[in-house]
Amino acid sequence: MDQTLCSLTRCVAAQLQQVENRFDAELASELACVNTLVLHVSRFRGKMLRPLLVLLAGKACGELGDAHIVLATVVEMVHMATLVHDDVLDEAELRRRGATINHLRGNEAAVLLGDYLISHSFHLCSSLESQFASRVIGQTTNQVCEGELLQIHNRNNLDLDEETYFKIITHKTAVLCAACCLLGASFAGADEIIAERMRQYGLAIGTAFQIQDDILDIVGDQTTVGKTLGIDLDKGKLTLPIIHFLRTAPREHRTLLRSLLSSHEADKVERIRNLILPSRSVQYAADRAQQLVARAKATLDGLPDAQARQVLQTMADFVIARPM
Amino acid sequence: MDQTLCSLTRCVAAQLQQVENRFDAELASELACVNTLVLHVSRFRGKMLRPLLVLLAGKACGELGDAHIVLATVVEMVHMATLVHDDVLDEAELRRRGATINHLRGNEAAVLLGDYLISHSFHLCSSLESQFASRVIGQTTNQVCEGELLQIHNRNNLDLDEETYFKIITHKTAVLCAACCLLGASFAGADEIIAERMRQYGLAIGTAFQIQDDILDIVGDQTTVGKTLGIDLDKGKLTLPIIHFLRTAPREHRTLLRSLLSSHEADKVERIRNLILPSRSVQYAADRAQQLVARAKATLDGLPDAQARQVLQTMADFVIARPM
Repeated sequence: MDQTLCSLTRCVAAQLQQVENRFDAELASELACVNTLVLHVSRFRGKMLRPLLVLLAGKACGELGDAHIVLATVVEMVHMATLVHDDVLDEAELRRRGATINHLRGNEAAVLLGDYLISHSFHLCSSLESQFASRVIGQTTNQVCEGELLQIHNRNNLDLDEETYFKIITHKTAVLCAACCLLGASFAGADEIIAERMRQYGLAIGTAFQIQDDILDIVGDQTTVGKTLGIDLDKGKLTLPIIHFLRTAPREHRTLLRSLLSSHEADKVERIRNLILPSRSVQYAADRAQQLVARAKATLDGLPDAQARQVLQTMADFVIARPM
Repeated sequence: MDQTLCSLTRCVAAQLQQVENRFDAELASELACVNTLVLHVSRFRGKMLRPLLVLLAGKACGELGDAHIVLATVVEMVHMATLVHDDVLDEAELRRRGATINHLRGNEAAVLLGDYLISHSFHLCSSLESQFASRVIGQTTNQVCEGELLQIHNRNNLDLDEETYFKIITHKTAVLCAACCLLGASFAGADEIIAERMRQYGLAIGTAFQIQDDILDIVGDQTTVGKTLGIDLDKGKLTLPIIHFLRTAPREHRTLLRSLLSSHEADKVERIRNLILPSRSVQYAADRAQQLVARAKATLDGLPDAQARQVLQTMADFVIARPM
């Protein structure tokens, strides 16, 4: 799977390096204590999936320019900010095989570091000539916050329905991917119809990505995935396999799952996993993700660049084929 | 003192009402749970000091337009976001005579609500035609975060010097006031020299304002001030009166203060207050604030509108004459 990622990044490797440089340059402070904290964030930077979306969408629609580097850096900062604040919320002790900020430095530093990242993302975005990107990013982060708020509002809601689940993950994850693709395409000169298609592509793969993430939280191996798993369960967040199980499993299984979800026993996550795995519910969620990937691929028809289209198709497959 | 505030707001009362409306409109969500949370924030909205600065600076330099309403709303949102996140940091149980968000709904809701406010402030700012305001606001919030980070870095640092203290309060408080005045003036058509003077004015009164806030945290009456006091002391934040005392008081008093600051006794704040009050240290801090107010007033010379100049002078006096 790492090979797939390599093949995806190869055609924009030079630009991804520029994004990393811009990221570091934008966050550099005159204050040593700020730099120490920021250094820690960049050490557990991830796969740069969102910058990759900006760059690939741009390449698929035309030429990449400096604006793409700026935008790719902006979306990565937004994403990092949500990760850092999520860590405060989730009390996760592991994130990407590194200790989380809040675990090392306390919640206060994590809150402020997230604020520092989000502030710099907007500041960097405002360096572009037009307000277009700032408006898209602002609207997107508004929705991300709403998704997160809707999620905690529904914590421990054992009657959460699929519609609300999809509203949550669309807002908290997919709209940022959609913005990446929209901005990448627009700044490469795509017309409105193509840009809107790219936005739809991003929305679909972003949703699929989050479903896959939610599946991994239940069935994944902590060492392979590289972050604390079972957090959703621990924090009372119902995800698609759970919602499906609570709707379709035999009555006694449903009753057992409800009582496990409300319990605080140490082996809670393990027991839920053992209950869910033999059912069809994980496969149901995987199928929904697969349908979204197919829909994403369909929106790519008619893109001018055949090679870029192929890369975006590979990307779509990649988001649901991450290591378990 | 409330009369002073009334006289200050009277000449921009219509615009302040528009700011309140814009504030509510921008934060309105399709999600009921978001609106409930937001409603709670608006209920403990403060004196609208920062919007007032935008409007008065604008009026002092020319005509107020819709951009001023937008900008005044933006700075209030930025300020509210820092308050909400500060409450997470400070574990304050009272703010403006209302329960704080984190006390009512948990730290997670407070982090997300602060994010929602900051996101909407940038989003609203991007609705303006030019990027100028977005750049100023982005740069300002970068600095606010740095100030907060420098502050927690120096928590429990009993050797904090005045220079670092001023760096902290300039970043975390004064730069936003400076941005208010700069933007208010610029969007009223002020030339660069006048706009820069207005920025200096805002910087000076913002710094004075924070010193006064820090004095109130030690000597103020909780009922009058309307928020939990003694928080700085409890959280190991050294403020100007304390820094001065630790430098100038008789050795045995200094030793006593150092041991009180490091202690966790219930009457810690009360004992520190009783130790500091008879000294010159509170007066020293008040004098520094007074000097800054005088400097702020001096920058007003040469403003075209005599009446607006008078109002800004009154405003400068007001920030250090708040109720004890």
